[in-house]
Amino acid sequence: MKLTRRELGRLAATGAASQLASAAMAQDNQRKIGYCPVGLGRVSDNFLRASKASAHARITALVSGHRDKAEKIAAEYGVPARNIYSYDNYDAIADNKDIDAVYIGLPNSMHAEYTIRAAKAGKHVLCEKPMANSVTDCQAMIDACRKAGKKLMLAYCCQYEPVVNLRAIELIRSGKLGKIQTIDTASGFNIRPGEWRLNGRLAGGGPLMDMGIYALNGCRYLTGEEPLEVKGVSSVIDQDGRFKEVEENLMWTMKFPSGIVANCATSYGANLGTFFRVHGTKGMLLGEPAWGYDGLRLVARIQGEQPIDEPNPERHPAQFVREADHFAECIMQNKEPKTPGGEGLRDIKLIMDIYRSCGRNV
Amino acid sequence: MKLTRRELGRLAATGAASQLASAAMAQDNQRKIGYCPVGLGRVSDNFLRASKASAHARITALVSGHRDKAEKIAAEYGVPARNIYSYDNYDAIADNKDIDAVYIGLPNSMHAEYTIRAAKAGKHVLCEKPMANSVTDCQAMIDACRKAGKKLMLAYCCQYEPVVNLRAIELIRSGKLGKIQTIDTASGFNIRPGEWRLNGRLAGGGPLMDMGIYALNGCRYLTGEEPLEVKGVSSVIDQDGRFKEVEENLMWTMKFPSGIVANCATSYGANLGTFFRVHGTKGMLLGEPAWGYDGLRLVARIQGEQPIDEPNPERHPAQFVREADHFAECIMQNKEPKTPGGEGLRDIKLIMDIYRSCGRNV
Repeated sequence: MKLTRRELGRLAATGAASQLASAAMAQDNQRKIGYCPVGLGRVSDNFLRASKASAHARITALVSGHRDKAEKIAAEYGVPARNIYSYDNYDAIADNKDIDAVYIGLPNSMHAEYTIRAAKAGKHVLCEKPMANSVTDCQAMIDACRKAGKKLMLAYCCQYEPVVNLRAIELIRSGKLGKIQTIDTASGFNIRPGEWRLNGRLAGGGPLMDMGIYALNGCRYLTGEEPLEVKGVSSVIDQDGRFKEVEENLMWTMKFPSGIVANCATSYGANLGTFFRVHGTKGMLLGEPAWGYDGLRLVARIQGEQPIDEPNPERHPAQFVREADHFAECIMQNKEPKTPGGEGLRDIKLIMDIYRSCGRNV
Repeated sequence: MKLTRRELGRLAATGAASQLASAAMAQDNQRKIGYCPVGLGRVSDNFLRASKASAHARITALVSGHRDKAEKIAAEYGVPARNIYSYDNYDAIADNKDIDAVYIGLPNSMHAEYTIRAAKAGKHVLCEKPMANSVTDCQAMIDACRKAGKKLMLAYCCQYEPVVNLRAIELIRSGKLGKIQTIDTASGFNIRPGEWRLNGRLAGGGPLMDMGIYALNGCRYLTGEEPLEVKGVSSVIDQDGRFKEVEENLMWTMKFPSGIVANCATSYGANLGTFFRVHGTKGMLLGEPAWGYDGLRLVARIQGEQPIDEPNPERHPAQFVREADHFAECIMQNKEPKTPGGEGLRDIKLIMDIYRSCGRNV
């Protein structure tokens, strides 16, 4: 059985697509979803590079405010000049059948607008985390995609990383650690001046939005629970102009329904690295680094089990490849992404709770 | 110059003792303070063993509710039978010139009573942490010792441990780590049923009183600051009878005046081990284990410095020896101990703030 994309689309519309699409994929590994990165900064560069190694993603269009840059990248990725868009003519992607989905790699404050416009243009949306700078924006993004019948996925790369993160979840769920009691996490680095992430309007917050979100999301997927309570403290120490608009350091605790308690740390003022430490009655897991792109490692010490000390040998941008392929499969097979809009919304709700607990008026 | 203890005592009373005592000590390394352990449980056993290796401490009397046990220990340590006391005739230590100081190794709820009675009997007091189960009791202990003109020291062994804890303080104060931004700590273990530490009346609380206090005290001496804010969450997960009266897990955050933020974890439900991780602008320190009796280790990664990875080769009960000797010197030289009553009081005040923040009515 070999189906054209148009035929598959019609099947999807009838609701019979899932099994057929799966069969189709098994037969046609060449089938690729046409992605259009929106914004060509650092994070989009990861996505572009990932497309080269992806089974189901290819770059078919670009959106950028810098035509020169876009033309160079277009040449590298075989994107025809007619498929280069600016922010001004972005809505015209609606008429471009080469584009199945957009990848939103813009500053946080622009995620909502460009997601909603993409949905209105009939495109699926893979959006970087954090989802948006407010709960209202997150909800509007979800609503727009739902109304347009388009899929929305948040690019939580770590939920697609097998050796440290997915393995940790599996070990925890297996019960081998006994009852999980505590989790310690950290995620932070010493930021250079001048980054848009230090601009409060664009970033919506400091390291919590950018790095702490890994710790927050991590605690949620490691426990499989939603926190009942969050309490935090934040500070600015370095009076060097970087932290006029966002926090420098933030630490918070959470309590989950089962009683698991978690400590999370984030910083733009010191290189915390990234780690999670999970302690159960019968053993512990350490992911460190837990959430970088490269060199992740899982250590486990569990009673009655062989010690685990396992690096993830995959190299960057492997996690982006996994994301791009997962969303492509969701589109082709009409499945809900593993990290849909609601996943991003839940984190933003909690982030706002943490900020309020730190005394910030959000 | 060789002085008898009586002569030294008279000199101390005139206020001229400090320099003379120092000179006397230099001349007479055999001079020892007579200690009387009160309670002969596990922690007192550490102190007893330490006395064998101590330069300035010797065991001259014992207080115990178990005469048989006390007689055995008395024989081992060369304590004459007349110097064995019970809790009933404890106040008679006032008449025993062999006893300079008591070492309080009783359950937490008894610290205040036996400290105050010792002060009234004219004895100096070395008291185990946590100081007491309430701020009121701590203050009463301080007041009683002050009124009696006797010294009070809290047995914070880690503040006498050189390789990990004192070295960490030194590195932090040197400025080599740049400005300190964050501290992560943990201290906890999986407790066996039946311990007095699970009895709320005796222990005054759970792992926070017993193990979390290391993390709390550690953050205070590592920063050299007093926290402005504490916020915590606590939980009981294991419904196996151990946690009817005390918490099982507790995590809290603190904010210090300089802006340093700290995360602390404690547990009686999982083996968290003990660690502190200090992150500054220019590097990090990891003490792990940080607060055990043996095998402590300091790791440091600081820009422009040689990496540090240094174990403390001293074996238990080395920290108790250092404590016993420090307090003996304070007595002989009429110096204020490094960890006086006020140090214990500050921790108990903060512990009560943390408990209140967790919703406990203290």
